Amino acid sequence: MICKNLTVDERGILLFAGQDTVSLLRTYGSPLYLMDEDLIRERCRTYREAMKEYFGQDALPLYASKAASFKEIYRIMKEEQMGIDVVSCGEIITAHEAGFPLEQAYFHSNNKTDADIAYAIEKGVGYFVVDNEDELYAIEDIAAKKNHSQKILLRLTPGIDTHTYEAVNTGKVDSKFGSAIETGQAEAITALALSLSHIDLRGFHCHVGSQVFDSDTFIRSSEIMMEFIGKIREKYGYTAKELDLGGGYGVRYLETDPELDIAANIAEVAKAVKSQAAALDLPMPAIRLEPGRSIVADSGMTLYTIGTIKKIPGYKNYISVDGGMSDNPRYALYGSEYTVVAPDRMKEECDFPCSLVGRCCESGDIIQENITLPASLKRGDPIAVLTTGAYNFSMASNYNRIPRLPIVMLKGGTHRLVVKRETIEDVMQNDL
Amino acid sequence: MICKNLTVDERGILLFAGQDTVSLLRTYGSPLYLMDEDLIRERCRTYREAMKEYFGQDALPLYASKAASFKEIYRIMKEEQMGIDVVSCGEIITAHEAGFPLEQAYFHSNNKTDADIAYAIEKGVGYFVVDNEDELYAIEDIAAKKNHSQKILLRLTPGIDTHTYEAVNTGKVDSKFGSAIETGQAEAITALALSLSHIDLRGFHCHVGSQVFDSDTFIRSSEIMMEFIGKIREKYGYTAKELDLGGGYGVRYLETDPELDIAANIAEVAKAVKSQAAALDLPMPAIRLEPGRSIVADSGMTLYTIGTIKKIPGYKNYISVDGGMSDNPRYALYGSEYTVVAPDRMKEECDFPCSLVGRCCESGDIIQENITLPASLKRGDPIAVLTTGAYNFSMASNYNRIPRLPIVMLKGGTHRLVVKRETIEDVMQNDL
Repeated sequence: MICKNLTVDERGILLFAGQDTVSLLRTYGSPLYLMDEDLIRERCRTYREAMKEYFGQDALPLYASKAASFKEIYRIMKEEQMGIDVVSCGEIITAHEAGFPLEQAYFHSNNKTDADIAYAIEKGVGYFVVDNEDELYAIEDIAAKKNHSQKILLRLTPGIDTHTYEAVNTGKVDSKFGSAIETGQAEAITALALSLSHIDLRGFHCHVGSQVFDSDTFIRSSEIMMEFIGKIREKYGYTAKELDLGGGYGVRYLETDPELDIAANIAEVAKAVKSQAAALDLPMPAIRLEPGRSIVADSGMTLYTIGTIKKIPGYKNYISVDGGMSDNPRYALYGSEYTVVAPDRMKEECDFPCSLVGRCCESGDIIQENITLPASLKRGDPIAVLTTGAYNFSMASNYNRIPRLPIVMLKGGTHRLVVKRETIEDVMQNDL
Repeated sequence: MICKNLTVDERGILLFAGQDTVSLLRTYGSPLYLMDEDLIRERCRTYREAMKEYFGQDALPLYASKAASFKEIYRIMKEEQMGIDVVSCGEIITAHEAGFPLEQAYFHSNNKTDADIAYAIEKGVGYFVVDNEDELYAIEDIAAKKNHSQKILLRLTPGIDTHTYEAVNTGKVDSKFGSAIETGQAEAITALALSLSHIDLRGFHCHVGSQVFDSDTFIRSSEIMMEFIGKIREKYGYTAKELDLGGGYGVRYLETDPELDIAANIAEVAKAVKSQAAALDLPMPAIRLEPGRSIVADSGMTLYTIGTIKKIPGYKNYISVDGGMSDNPRYALYGSEYTVVAPDRMKEECDFPCSLVGRCCESGDIIQENITLPASLKRGDPIAVLTTGAYNFSMASNYNRIPRLPIVMLKGGTHRLVVKRETIEDVMQNDL
């Protein structure tokens, strides 16, 4: 199986975190997101421990909460002593309401409004990851009025092409994010930040993309960032205290995807950063990483119920389930791959070729094309889509006025609701 | 301008339905959807009148409400004596709460659950557009228990390739929707429907795709459907009373898109259907069309505020606004084209090449690439994206925990809120 928290019992039932998925579907209703809290915590610890071991005690992973943002996840992150990466007032408020200490929050976004900035300063958000000069001026103005000095990192684009999809490739120069080192804009915004009296420049940030499996990309980007830190010290006498290398560690969606050894990868990157710090005679900066997908993706699963099985002779077979692009838009958006199984017949042969489609009234409402499932499946049977913990709940919509799914959290053999199922009344509540 | 409801006043301000868009943005806050009720009603009348004139008095347009579903739109549809196409219990309940008479509702969806079917029968939904045999059996069972005879149409795929995008091309045989005529499955499901005692088969439905500008596609599909009706009469002695030719009429997103004369198009299709009815000696069926996009798309507009303007020398310029794929996912999903203007400087030259991007923390969060806007734009200035009335509000998400936009309806020089702005409290309400 693609993740160790997936097992099959003697009856051929899929267990997730050791629990019977078919029984959970009956208990909580269909469709349903499951999340495995034990695995989420284990992933946090892997990052935290490896980072402290290899980068030093002041290193810290920040959970990139856009991957899955709801109150309970911030409670877990607080307990695991993680920092968080937040991208909007909505995420800040959710974290705050959950009791997360906002001084450990890093506020991203290529477009923070004046209202966002004022709110984040008021709530005591620790760091702004500043994208551009417009934002820097706005923070200076608002912080000045509040007589506050705001810690910031500057988001830079190191010009790395990760050869991932266009849509998830953010470290290259031509990006809506950050200031490019190559064009001199990174240096210009650094000089500007150093000149502003309510800005406390702590260091730099970069993010090279998503679904990266090799350490080379991170090593190459950290080299570029360290060279930049060295150049800035030389020219401006300013030494960065923090270096945030962003997120992007890959996860397994398919059996054919590689398995990433996060700790080993961190060790390799740390070795490169330390050796470069020594070569440039720079103090080792406090390192930040921003794992999102690699914390929650394979800690999540979606359970559906089959509505219809359509066989079109000479063409294709379609299995329709009671969800779709409204709860998982990633195939429609990116053609993303997922592993699909029949959780109540894991020992049956998968010899029925089909596409798994949703219930939305749209041809593009596909969850996965060209898969195989057991031929015995029929209306009413369950379907599980694996590795849906990241960017499913957070990207869900009410397209077709379909209410969004609940999240059930599994922990040490127990299960509990952490996000309630949306009702149609919820969906209509703002209609006048 | 791409639609007649767009004008510019002497100050260079964009007017929508004759009203000052910049002033509306100040009044209701940013970002904001506007809708033009007068144009919505005019489009409904164009369909209704042309259909009655050319197809006969029993013809009826059904508003495909998945394009934009909220209470007020159903009130307007009721007043305009339109039927509606609904695709979920959520849309049925919204229409019902708005006072829409559900006997004029046609319930679509490739995957209706037993609960959906029971609910729709209980609420008195007039027609089920039945997609497949699984559904037909489920309706028969549930209707039998309620001692009810349910009127249905059968959704068939005529095998037409409209040469539109893959994702919006639904009339071809290899589709998750309907039963194919080519494979004999359409005939089989018809025979099944005729054999079931709680099913009242009224006729047939097809839908050939989206953004269709020529009448040929509709003429060709209606010919195939009429031939099928003739064949079924011959073989089973059953004559269809209704023929639903679906939706798909194209709208103008760009100046270069053609302008569709809906009434002329309907006249051409009607001529073909009548001539075929005569040739086959068939009574003229009551025709249904399902316009969605062509009722509301250019009746809608989105207003944003600029957050940052980023110039990357040698690469590209980016203008970021305070919305994005969370309120308009269509570029991210399909690469859809939109016309973008600066509503407070419509007389200025557009000589600044740029991409318009959103505020979501995602590289693919683009509203439109490679456009030109006035070079004088700066943080705080408004931006208007035109023709956003269809599949924007209805497909919106809370990605990045960004609350969804309100809808302000414009009518005869007045404006009123019809959907309230979502709050962050709304977004968090189901988090435990």
